[in-house]
Amino acid sequence: LTYAETDGPQQREVAALVYRTPAPYVIGITGPPGAGKSTLTDAFVAHLLERGRVAGVALDRVAVLAVDPSSPFTGGAILGDRVRMQRHSTDERVFIRSMATRGHLGGLSLAVPDAIRVLGAVGYPLVVVETVGVGQMEVEIAGAADATIVVAIPGAGDSMQANKAGLLEVADVFVVNKADRPDASSVVRDLEQMLDLGLSSDWRPSIVTTVATTDTGIAQLADALDDFAIAASETGRATTRRTRRASVALQRVLSVTLARRAHAMAQDPVFVGAVEALLDDRLDPYTAAESLLQ
Amino acid sequence: LTYAETDGPQQREVAALVYRTPAPYVIGITGPPGAGKSTLTDAFVAHLLERGRVAGVALDRVAVLAVDPSSPFTGGAILGDRVRMQRHSTDERVFIRSMATRGHLGGLSLAVPDAIRVLGAVGYPLVVVETVGVGQMEVEIAGAADATIVVAIPGAGDSMQANKAGLLEVADVFVVNKADRPDASSVVRDLEQMLDLGLSSDWRPSIVTTVATTDTGIAQLADALDDFAIAASETGRATTRRTRRASVALQRVLSVTLARRAHAMAQDPVFVGAVEALLDDRLDPYTAAESLLQ
Repeated sequence: LTYAETDGPQQREVAALVYRTPAPYVIGITGPPGAGKSTLTDAFVAHLLERGRVAGVALDRVAVLAVDPSSPFTGGAILGDRVRMQRHSTDERVFIRSMATRGHLGGLSLAVPDAIRVLGAVGYPLVVVETVGVGQMEVEIAGAADATIVVAIPGAGDSMQANKAGLLEVADVFVVNKADRPDASSVVRDLEQMLDLGLSSDWRPSIVTTVATTDTGIAQLADALDDFAIAASETGRATTRRTRRASVALQRVLSVTLARRAHAMAQDPVFVGAVEALLDDRLDPYTAAESLLQ
Repeated sequence: LTYAETDGPQQREVAALVYRTPAPYVIGITGPPGAGKSTLTDAFVAHLLERGRVAGVALDRVAVLAVDPSSPFTGGAILGDRVRMQRHSTDERVFIRSMATRGHLGGLSLAVPDAIRVLGAVGYPLVVVETVGVGQMEVEIAGAADATIVVAIPGAGDSMQANKAGLLEVADVFVVNKADRPDASSVVRDLEQMLDLGLSSDWRPSIVTTVATTDTGIAQLADALDDFAIAASETGRATTRRTRRASVALQRVLSVTLARRAHAMAQDPVFVGAVEALLDDRLDPYTAAESLLQ
């Protein structure tokens, strides 16, 4: 995992190995800060280990990746792995890893898929990817899962609103957590209404209410994922999604590779000349870039 | 401005024009949400128009760009321009524009510099760029200014902490806004201590306390920018910064252009074959990308 998180030749060697083993099943969990995602993940993982199976995947262990793209510091802004999920701190069947960043220039969007494959290769049949925050990258990362859980909570109308479009698109199952709060039913109603407006899709995301702190609704969440997996497999959506994911992964590696070439180009004397022309207002950067690329 | 915000041939034509006129002086204003950046910008712009000059730039009009990179919707997540800065809603000397995004694949990091040059070309000697939020892109955008103001407020320790490193690097002047709050002096002290630890630099950012709602400290802020501009010009920092900014701008255009090529590559049959190999676990994406690029 450390190699997968660190740019360099070893990252390539690891990738060459792990991408030749089957990918694990990936469940993404995303939602606004304060929605109780960690606690939900915690309770969910405990239940899955008891249950031994979810979405058609038999499991005797689970890996959790906690991803925070907004942090510029690796492991800095999120709590330590052990603090985050106390229930599992001594459980050998659960592996937890926090990820913040890999190098620069889009590193994280490569590091997370790599880490998922590493975990699959060493024998985790299921990887839960929990993203902190609701930026575009979080939605992207969570949306690249086989099944994506979007967590909403009562009283967080604004953040829900702001990200409605992005979240609606990636959600396979909605969780309304902290459902013991008085306005939980209105959140469910709002979600139902959003779903009625309906983006075209062959799957209508189910809505599960939970109180993660007391394990309430967690079994229903696992059932909802089973239902989704069956529907996804029957409609061919599972395959479509894996294909799209592979395509996006390849595009990302391409663009990051090219971005790094652009970065390296900055050492070139032609580049330096172009910068001088820009400073003297003789050239615009688009024309300059075109000549450089030629 | 609409052309500069919209991908396409017209964007190129506009760029070819506006990059051949001198760049305006750019003041960046950034800081955590709730720091009162809009009110501060409002009061600051009013004062500058009275004053007629700042940082050696004579001005009879000011343009304001309010940038929100976290919004996936153009103009969506930020309040309407007229609502934001009520004081100037009828002032013809102030032009205000909200910017959220331009297309995809790093569009905003190109659109903001383009918009700045458009505003310069049509006669605004000064452009104030205010960023909403404190993500990496906000810091980048604000840091690309000739002078960058970082706004801190009492009682927002956490957001300040989290972004300390990034903000420290780009700040030329610190503003402690809402300085009528009781713990304002401790924020000033914290900032002084951070500055004592000192990244190496030939300029120690000054710290100005303001109460933007009552125009308190706004004149001192303008004075601090004058002092900074004189120091920056004497030490050569102003030139260094313009050169670095042109270099970064060119690198960005290069990498966005390349990213779009990568995106276009996805239509290629060779790409489709590579995706199939990925799906069958016969190939890793890095090796695939390398062969595609060759």
